[in-house]
Amino acid sequence: MNDRTATPVTIIGLGLMGQALAGAFLKAGHPTTVWNRTAAKAEQLVAGGARLAPTVGDALQASPLTIVCVTDYGAVHELISENDLEGTTLINLTSGTSAQAREAAERGARYLDGAIMAIPPAIGTAEAVILLSGPHADFAEHEQALGVLGTVTYLGADPGLASLYDAAGLAMMWSVLNAWLQGTALLRTAGVDAATFAPFAREIATGVAGWLPGYAEQVDRGAFPAEVSALETDARAMAHLVEESEAAGVNAELPRLIKTLADRAIAAGHGGEQYPVLIEEFVTSRDG
Amino acid sequence: MNDRTATPVTIIGLGLMGQALAGAFLKAGHPTTVWNRTAAKAEQLVAGGARLAPTVGDALQASPLTIVCVTDYGAVHELISENDLEGTTLINLTSGTSAQAREAAERGARYLDGAIMAIPPAIGTAEAVILLSGPHADFAEHEQALGVLGTVTYLGADPGLASLYDAAGLAMMWSVLNAWLQGTALLRTAGVDAATFAPFAREIATGVAGWLPGYAEQVDRGAFPAEVSALETDARAMAHLVEESEAAGVNAELPRLIKTLADRAIAAGHGGEQYPVLIEEFVTSRDG
Repeated sequence: MNDRTATPVTIIGLGLMGQALAGAFLKAGHPTTVWNRTAAKAEQLVAGGARLAPTVGDALQASPLTIVCVTDYGAVHELISENDLEGTTLINLTSGTSAQAREAAERGARYLDGAIMAIPPAIGTAEAVILLSGPHADFAEHEQALGVLGTVTYLGADPGLASLYDAAGLAMMWSVLNAWLQGTALLRTAGVDAATFAPFAREIATGVAGWLPGYAEQVDRGAFPAEVSALETDARAMAHLVEESEAAGVNAELPRLIKTLADRAIAAGHGGEQYPVLIEEFVTSRDG
Repeated sequence: MNDRTATPVTIIGLGLMGQALAGAFLKAGHPTTVWNRTAAKAEQLVAGGARLAPTVGDALQASPLTIVCVTDYGAVHELISENDLEGTTLINLTSGTSAQAREAAERGARYLDGAIMAIPPAIGTAEAVILLSGPHADFAEHEQALGVLGTVTYLGADPGLASLYDAAGLAMMWSVLNAWLQGTALLRTAGVDAATFAPFAREIATGVAGWLPGYAEQVDRGAFPAEVSALETDARAMAHLVEESEAAGVNAELPRLIKTLADRAIAAGHGGEQYPVLIEEFVTSRDG
C-alpha cells in the first residue's frame, strides 16, 4: 500500500541485496520503481506492488531518490555516463573502494556513496547499519526515506568515507574471527572444544574494544607513555604465543605477523612505549 | 595485621608483579613470607608486615601455599629440583608456554600453573583475571586464599591450560588492537582522527565478539552452512580491503594475511561455506 506522503524511490540492481532494499521501501509504503538487467528478478517485487520500469532511463526519471546496488563500479559508471540524472539523487550502495566512490562522485549528479554493513535479511531493521558519505544537503533531503532501510549513519562530505569505514569495519570483523580461530585451534590441542573457549574469547574482545577510545587519544596526541605496559614486555609474551602455536603444530602466521610488527617498532626505538605507538607501522606501506 | 584464620602464604620472586601479589595477601591479613634473589626488593613488603625468609628453602617451608612469579621457567625448574617441596602447594604464575608448565608439573610436588591477565596495579581487584590449571583438589584447597588476588578461574586438570588460554587471549587482544590500527591508518588518509574512528571500531569488535558462541557451535559440529554469508562473498570484500590499503599507501600485511587464509580455504573447496570453516586453516601448521 503506497503512502502518498512517502518519497517515491527507484531501486536499480535486484540481486539479493537490491531486492531486500526494494522490499523495505515497499513495506514502508514508498511508491517503488525497480529495474534490473534481467527483468525476471523483479517478479516478486512487482507482485508486492513495485513498478517495473521498461528502461533504466525511465527508472531514473521515476523518483527523486534512486538507490543503486549493482555488481561493481563498472556498471555504476555506465549508468552515470549513459543516462540523464537531472531529477534524482543517486545513493550508490555498490561495494567498492573509496577511490571508486570518489571517481563516481566526480562524474556529476547529486550523489552519495554508501556501504551496507548487514546481510539482506537484516535490511529494514535497526540492525542493518548503512554508512553514507557525500554532500550533506543531499543526505538531509533523503534522510527520512533512507531510515526505512536500517540505522543510517552519515560520515561526512568526502564520498570515499563510507568505503573506508566499511573496509576498516571488515578488517576488525575478520581480525576478531581470526584471533578466535587461532585460540580455538590452540585450545583444541588440549582437548578443549570451541564452545568452551568462545565465551572467554568474547570477553577478551569486548574488554579490549573498550580500551580503544582511550588508546585513540594517544594516537591523536602522538604520545605513547607506557601507562599500562611497554611494547618490549608485550613482545616477550608474543614470543610465547609464536612458540605455543609452533609447538602445538597450529598455524603461526597470525602470531608471527603480530610479533613482526611489534619487533619493527622496538627496532625503531619504541620498546619503552605503549602499544598504540604501532600506528607508525600501520601508516607505512610495506610491499608483500 | 595478620588474620590467624588466613592461610599463610609465601611469595617467591619480587618483581613488580610478585610485589603486587605479596601486597594483596598482606592487605587481606595473610601471614606472608617473601623471598627474592635480591633481598632489597623485599624492603617495602617487610615494612608492611611481610617476613623475609633467609633462604628459598626456608620460604618454601614457611607456608602451605607458595606463589612463584619469577623471570622464566629456568628459575622455576631450579627451584623445584633443588628444594624440598613436601609441605607446600606451588602456584606457578611465571609466564611461559603450556609445554613448560606441563614439564614443571611433572617434576612432582603439588603444583598448579597459572597466568595473570592483568597489570600489577590491578592485583587485588576483581579486574585482575588469574587463570589456573592443574589438579582440582589442590585448587579447591587454596581457592579462597587465591581469591584475594582477583578473579580466579580454574580451567581444568591439564597444567598447560592456563598458558594456552593466556596465549589465546593475548592473540585476541593484539588482533583487536591491530585491526583498530589498520582502520585508524586507513581513515587517517581521509583526514579522520583516531578519536572519531574508535567508537565505530569498538562497536564492530563488540558486535562480532557476540557471534563467537554461535560460530563455535559450527566448529564443534564441523558443519559450516552459509547462514549469514559465504566465504567467497567475504573474499571479494577482502580484495577491496587489500586494494584500499595498498592504494592509500598504508600497511597491507594484515589485510593480505586475512585474504590469503580465506583464499586457501576457497581453493580447498570451501567457498560456499561460512567463515568458521577457516578453522581448518588454523589447525594446520604453516612454516614461515
